[in-house]
Amino acid sequence: MSKVLVFGHQNPDTDAIASSYAFAYLAKNAYGMDAEVVALGTPNEETTFALETFGVTAPRVVESAKAEGADTVILTDHNEFQQSIADIADVTIFGVVDHHRVANFETANPLFMRVEPVGSASSIVYRMYKENNLEVPKEIAGLLLSGLISDTLLLKSPTTHMTDHKVAEELAELAQVNLEEYGMGLLKAGTNLASKSEAELIDIDAKTFELNGNAVRVAQVNTVDIAEVLERQEAIETAIKDAMATEGYSDFVLMITDIVNSNSEILALGANMDKVEAAFNFKLENNHAFLPGAVSRKKQVVPQLTESFGN
Amino acid sequence: MSKVLVFGHQNPDTDAIASSYAFAYLAKNAYGMDAEVVALGTPNEETTFALETFGVTAPRVVESAKAEGADTVILTDHNEFQQSIADIADVTIFGVVDHHRVANFETANPLFMRVEPVGSASSIVYRMYKENNLEVPKEIAGLLLSGLISDTLLLKSPTTHMTDHKVAEELAELAQVNLEEYGMGLLKAGTNLASKSEAELIDIDAKTFELNGNAVRVAQVNTVDIAEVLERQEAIETAIKDAMATEGYSDFVLMITDIVNSNSEILALGANMDKVEAAFNFKLENNHAFLPGAVSRKKQVVPQLTESFGN
Repeated sequence: MSKVLVFGHQNPDTDAIASSYAFAYLAKNAYGMDAEVVALGTPNEETTFALETFGVTAPRVVESAKAEGADTVILTDHNEFQQSIADIADVTIFGVVDHHRVANFETANPLFMRVEPVGSASSIVYRMYKENNLEVPKEIAGLLLSGLISDTLLLKSPTTHMTDHKVAEELAELAQVNLEEYGMGLLKAGTNLASKSEAELIDIDAKTFELNGNAVRVAQVNTVDIAEVLERQEAIETAIKDAMATEGYSDFVLMITDIVNSNSEILALGANMDKVEAAFNFKLENNHAFLPGAVSRKKQVVPQLTESFGN
Repeated sequence: MSKVLVFGHQNPDTDAIASSYAFAYLAKNAYGMDAEVVALGTPNEETTFALETFGVTAPRVVESAKAEGADTVILTDHNEFQQSIADIADVTIFGVVDHHRVANFETANPLFMRVEPVGSASSIVYRMYKENNLEVPKEIAGLLLSGLISDTLLLKSPTTHMTDHKVAEELAELAQVNLEEYGMGLLKAGTNLASKSEAELIDIDAKTFELNGNAVRVAQVNTVDIAEVLERQEAIETAIKDAMATEGYSDFVLMITDIVNSNSEILALGANMDKVEAAFNFKLENNHAFLPGAVSRKKQVVPQLTESFGN
């Protein structure tokens, strides 16, 4: 077998980088594979904070497996082909470690696939270290912890699995950090929106969903001060309208998530605002409304929109 | 959560029945789930031999999960929807344990999915008992062993994984049987073709493959005496021609596999016999030819046909 590339999804978040980095180390040291971690994009500010804290160099960015001389890949934190490397359909998928739904995924041959409905792909990779009796180096524990904290907003998101609390405790001990303190520091590092243009801001973490024939874009930004983000509302709306015109979205739903108090403000524009209002049983005023307790796009926003848009 | 149904694929073979039976026991005893094993068809003669040897009652046959009052299911030994329960698209898939390629499979939510490229789904279920420190009862060890023996033709098929040998040894000890002796007895139980009509014979284990616009049916029967099966060639060819006319197959390839000596005779009819001959580099005489060492449809027949038929 030639070199095997290990990577998370496009537009990588902390869990994508952490789970792929840690899995490549596991593949080398427990399975004896010639595995190399790479990434499908540069780390965001939150991830950079984690990498710098634990002294890890960011994985190099690649665009094609074949161009790297690799015909075999391992995916972490994703499985849907449209979120993966450009030539995913032309290479052999050796394995997948993921915590998302399975869709738009197909292989020609049997593979290793490990999917669990837990808070992060990092949680699963950590479990695999234990199963293989492989010691977790301090810096890898730190990255895995960061992936879990990032995806669960410090274990507060409803996507948190009951087993994730113990995983977080164990990883914090191995990484020699205080869970709450490090966790809040990591999340805050991802809230520096001042350095970003409005076009960048609405694209930090955004996915498109096909809802009853409508292309609905659902983006999320983390902040410690919702009001500060809303000060830029006018410019954000201009960026959203530009994106809708260019990309053909019918609707754009931006979650402005307060990571300290675990709430979100929803800013929404588009053709189906009646359906958005019905989804959350609120009334948009000046295009926005408060959604108490909502922090998870996957559990608290997309299913509600899907239901409201109908089939 | 309501009752969870656990089942293998339609037209179940020994691995489908064994892996689902054993997984339902694991789900109850290790995960505390209200799980019930069911089946999407009645056991074949080989499976019946295993069930009777270990004193296990065959799982009851169901056709719809909803009709059983279940909205949640666990699949073993398959993932492709067309091989699953009729209303698979309408229920929640809680988990999958499989050793096949992943295709035509999609979920709305994250799930537990464990796929490994090993010889049988039973091998994976056995590993999960160990991971959960759950004792394997004698009769379940016997079933799991039977699933592994059946799918790998007693560890001789190239689909056998290097880890499967140790799995077989351990299961034979737990089941208190001699591996070789029990294994050959099990496989021979599946070779009783005398009781079957030719139409039944060509449908015991048959799958259709779409090869470059052609619907190619590839069936397999196990025997201890290829010549005995060929004595029925004329009637078998009539059954094949009937099936081709009724189902629209362009070609029909029947593997008559000698489980003692690990060879196959190929009996083939259809529009593309030049491609079939090129695939195996042999010459059909009176519609059949010998393929030494071939026992696996998945590894030694379908890829070669796919290559020869082209894209």
